[in-house]
Amino acid sequence: MSELWYTEKQTENFGITMKVKKTLHTEKTDFQYLEMAETEEWGNMLFLDGMVMTSQKDEFVYHEMVAHVPLFTHPNPEKVLVVGGGDGGVIREVLKHPSVKKAVLVDIDGKVIEYSKKYLPEIAGELENERVEVQVGDGFMHIAKSENEYDVIMVDSTEPVGPAVNLFTKGFYAGISKALKEEGIFVAQSDNPWFKADLIQQVQRDVKEIFPITRLYTANIPTYPSGMWAFTIGSKRHDPLQVSDERFHDIDTKYYTKELHKAAFVLPKFVKDLTE
Amino acid sequence: MSELWYTEKQTENFGITMKVKKTLHTEKTDFQYLEMAETEEWGNMLFLDGMVMTSQKDEFVYHEMVAHVPLFTHPNPEKVLVVGGGDGGVIREVLKHPSVKKAVLVDIDGKVIEYSKKYLPEIAGELENERVEVQVGDGFMHIAKSENEYDVIMVDSTEPVGPAVNLFTKGFYAGISKALKEEGIFVAQSDNPWFKADLIQQVQRDVKEIFPITRLYTANIPTYPSGMWAFTIGSKRHDPLQVSDERFHDIDTKYYTKELHKAAFVLPKFVKDLTE
Repeated sequence: MSELWYTEKQTENFGITMKVKKTLHTEKTDFQYLEMAETEEWGNMLFLDGMVMTSQKDEFVYHEMVAHVPLFTHPNPEKVLVVGGGDGGVIREVLKHPSVKKAVLVDIDGKVIEYSKKYLPEIAGELENERVEVQVGDGFMHIAKSENEYDVIMVDSTEPVGPAVNLFTKGFYAGISKALKEEGIFVAQSDNPWFKADLIQQVQRDVKEIFPITRLYTANIPTYPSGMWAFTIGSKRHDPLQVSDERFHDIDTKYYTKELHKAAFVLPKFVKDLTE
Repeated sequence: MSELWYTEKQTENFGITMKVKKTLHTEKTDFQYLEMAETEEWGNMLFLDGMVMTSQKDEFVYHEMVAHVPLFTHPNPEKVLVVGGGDGGVIREVLKHPSVKKAVLVDIDGKVIEYSKKYLPEIAGELENERVEVQVGDGFMHIAKSENEYDVIMVDSTEPVGPAVNLFTKGFYAGISKALKEEGIFVAQSDNPWFKADLIQQVQRDVKEIFPITRLYTANIPTYPSGMWAFTIGSKRHDPLQVSDERFHDIDTKYYTKELHKAAFVLPKFVKDLTE
């Protein structure tokens, strides 16, 4: 009997490959090529333009580490914006913070939301929560027209190709700064230091020009290139390394801990060098 | 023109795949199947029984993190034993510590040493150093006949299949304890928490029965399963988390830093749970 294996070439010369039980859905949306598959190792997985976005087995790492690091850094986050993130995983984590009164999600591709609800219900389940407002639209434009509105902004985008290309520009970070309140913080996924060192350096440089506090942290995501994923923080006032112990409250997580909150910023030497 | 890709199935249903420029050597040795290949992404790579052992591009992570964590924890390491590690990478890092007067390497497979010298010269180059004694032999037996001899022992083995199966037993850890001096420390590679959680838990349990201080730390190794690799420390007196700032000295590294020495022990929640 033949076997179906999906291979993502993470670089021209290296990739991961996974055995597929069943392809659940494939569709060329208005913005990208969407695939949903049931894999043996990782459960259901979402691919956009051939790249792994999330899997049922390891999704908790990315979603927890995007959400909790900035949310615990801010002293009282009430209004949160998620740009991208149509699978709903970041929103699910955001809602674990009782201070958050409203979380707005703006994803350009309604199909990502639709098929995540269908095939990744434990990830997307909180998109229906009454504290959440889902908008299908352009995150860049949403940011551009927002002013002094959000406490925390999270950029949960694809790579800087296709629909996300505007989300890796200095103009976008300037827009984020304007959209944030005076104690605001943003976080953006920033790819990986092994294959995309230049991108990480460029984002660090650009964000530093706009935010007085700029930091980089990492987490281990097995289905993402190199297994080490980077996140950039830009903050107007609060330093993620200076969070007091009393700020933390108990939260149900599988990856994030308050100790890891700080340790995640301690970088391997070759990664630290990219931030200097 | 056809392309040659090597695929390592890291689990039954998941693997990494890499484009090969050229196969440099393949041989069934007395102990394992050895392959050396020149890859596009990672440079020259050594495979044993189909598993990636090391690559020129990412080898520094494993070798630095095996060597420097125990060596900086011990106040004055003079005599060091490396079990396995025939590629010479751990030895190269050990020699960066001026206190080390003698480093003994015992690898069961002389062919690993021979072909590492030939195809991984910047990894194996220090095997000829006058402070190094290379023995081709059984590390388990070497440990069994050693008493109160070493300050630090490093177990740089393959997985617990094939020749390394004895190196994951309680009897082996008891032997290590006897072979160490009274301030002795050992470290062993312990696979990864995503696919081998049971193994990590078992090693933690076994080592705790013998060593008063037992710790787990991790590092990101892109060519190893899941990208997160675990290392177990067993120590008679010195705690790797209690190293004073004055103990550290400058050392030329690409991954290890004195800050990372401590941060590497701060584990994601699901990994921490394996140690309790």
